[in-house]
Amino acid sequence: MTRILTGIQASGRPHLGNILGAILPAIKLSQKPDTESFLFIADLHSMTTVKNAQTLADNTRAVASAWLACGFDADTNFFYRQSRLAGYHTELLWYLSCQTPYPMLANAHSFKDKSDRLSDVNAGLFTYPVLQAADIVLYKANFVPVGKDQKQHLEMSKDIAAAFNRTFGDILVLPEPLIDESVMVIPGTDGSKMSKSYNNYIDIFLPEKQLLKSIKSIISDSTPLEEPKNPDNDITFKLFSLIAEQADIDTMRDNYLRGGYGYGHAKQALFELIWKRFEKERELFNYYMEDKDALEKKLKAGEEKAGEIARQTITEVRSVLGFN
Amino acid sequence: MTRILTGIQASGRPHLGNILGAILPAIKLSQKPDTESFLFIADLHSMTTVKNAQTLADNTRAVASAWLACGFDADTNFFYRQSRLAGYHTELLWYLSCQTPYPMLANAHSFKDKSDRLSDVNAGLFTYPVLQAADIVLYKANFVPVGKDQKQHLEMSKDIAAAFNRTFGDILVLPEPLIDESVMVIPGTDGSKMSKSYNNYIDIFLPEKQLLKSIKSIISDSTPLEEPKNPDNDITFKLFSLIAEQADIDTMRDNYLRGGYGYGHAKQALFELIWKRFEKERELFNYYMEDKDALEKKLKAGEEKAGEIARQTITEVRSVLGFN
Repeated sequence: MTRILTGIQASGRPHLGNILGAILPAIKLSQKPDTESFLFIADLHSMTTVKNAQTLADNTRAVASAWLACGFDADTNFFYRQSRLAGYHTELLWYLSCQTPYPMLANAHSFKDKSDRLSDVNAGLFTYPVLQAADIVLYKANFVPVGKDQKQHLEMSKDIAAAFNRTFGDILVLPEPLIDESVMVIPGTDGSKMSKSYNNYIDIFLPEKQLLKSIKSIISDSTPLEEPKNPDNDITFKLFSLIAEQADIDTMRDNYLRGGYGYGHAKQALFELIWKRFEKERELFNYYMEDKDALEKKLKAGEEKAGEIARQTITEVRSVLGFN
Repeated sequence: MTRILTGIQASGRPHLGNILGAILPAIKLSQKPDTESFLFIADLHSMTTVKNAQTLADNTRAVASAWLACGFDADTNFFYRQSRLAGYHTELLWYLSCQTPYPMLANAHSFKDKSDRLSDVNAGLFTYPVLQAADIVLYKANFVPVGKDQKQHLEMSKDIAAAFNRTFGDILVLPEPLIDESVMVIPGTDGSKMSKSYNNYIDIFLPEKQLLKSIKSIISDSTPLEEPKNPDNDITFKLFSLIAEQADIDTMRDNYLRGGYGYGHAKQALFELIWKRFEKERELFNYYMEDKDALEKKLKAGEEKAGEIARQTITEVRSVLGFN
């Protein structure tokens, strides 16, 4: 059985860009035969930047609801909040810290990027690559899907685990990166990468009118309705092609090239597509957001399952440390 | 009820210097009315330097046996190994890390002293003042007895706890230092401070002949037997006066000043004094060193008691973090 592990930032309601670029591919991966997916909400990591407990809890709830809504099967996989297994994660963090050379952390890109404003950097931000290593080896994950920007951290995780093994014996599994070369960049309503920080995102969980309004806000050029339009330069068309079936994409392309088809029509079509494509997801999302207990039950069950694995690993680690 | 907390390095069999300078004063403090003493073996801290599990376990056993042998009452106080409550200590370590500015750690004396050999410094050594803070606030300790060299770390603990309180509400108790001005410097067999690293220590738990041999190795000047001697310049006399009753000290002083009393006589007297004064301690020490189960039972009971307090604090902390 191959174990794939993914940590999810507890950054609140995922938008269309998150869903198409990260959530759906991860869910697809979790459905592969002979794999178990460990999917956890990295709310201990979030503490390095989010200082408000209510914000953290709200963000966690929204992100967990979205993953379940998008079809992640928490019953056949592992779905949990890192904070609820904090004792295991942080205990391993400490053991691994004692094997991590200071300069490795000081030279990490993520820290160097912040070195001009050190007073804003807390010790958690400095050591979080070690917590990441603990997050991974605690579940003996074989693969961690990473973007190119995360490759250094995964190499650090591997190095830290290897250092532990050299000192205390070969008990930790060394994780390998799983680099998805076909990473999609999802454009936002203004054409740049869809992102919360650019405020250019489409929230598929919005009610009908608000969703339509947000799709209408997609930028388009001023080609008059009658004239032919270039689909390959248009944000609405790009978003449409990321979601629609091939036949519908072809039809839409013909509409653009033929003329007499306005951007308003295209946006209406995109709205209808999103509204329909994510109907089940929207319902499930609202269900989990409204029924706190139902979400809590799913997460608690996942935490119990994940906790068993974590406890096993910690027991093995304590044993080689002479702490049993 | 005032809570006093002391962490003990798991550095193996304590010697006479440790016992007179640290263990007996701490035990005396633990006997004060309306105080509870939290005494723990800091074996998580030891991991920053000791990498061998067996060494760590042996050192821990020896130090725990010595404290019990010297009269620490584990039943009315709290006596535990930090490693056995590692989940609580390290979970709080993480929460406090997210409140600790990086420069505070980088400017700590303990880190600066090591800045010329950074590749030997691991992340555990860098962050250990935060673990110290966690060790203290986890048990809501009011006072921590510290030497002057440890004052900065205790101030850091207080600052870190205060930062947490500012962000999440007033739930952590801010610890105060308890500075013992009357710190005794116990001379070793060569006259410099008694220390394992100088190999000039007297091990009171040794069998009779070995103890006598070690006391005979105390350095003295070459004043002939018949001549008067200056007690105030003599190591044997100093050690004798640290342990003996006043009347016996006076007699010994007279012997020195009178002449006809050799250093050999004085060493024999010191040996007899130590042999008798620590008879019960030696027996108890050997008992705990030989009966692993008896020691384990004491520690396990202590860990259960301490674990209850730790769990309470962690529950309160998780609650303000929204993690319950």
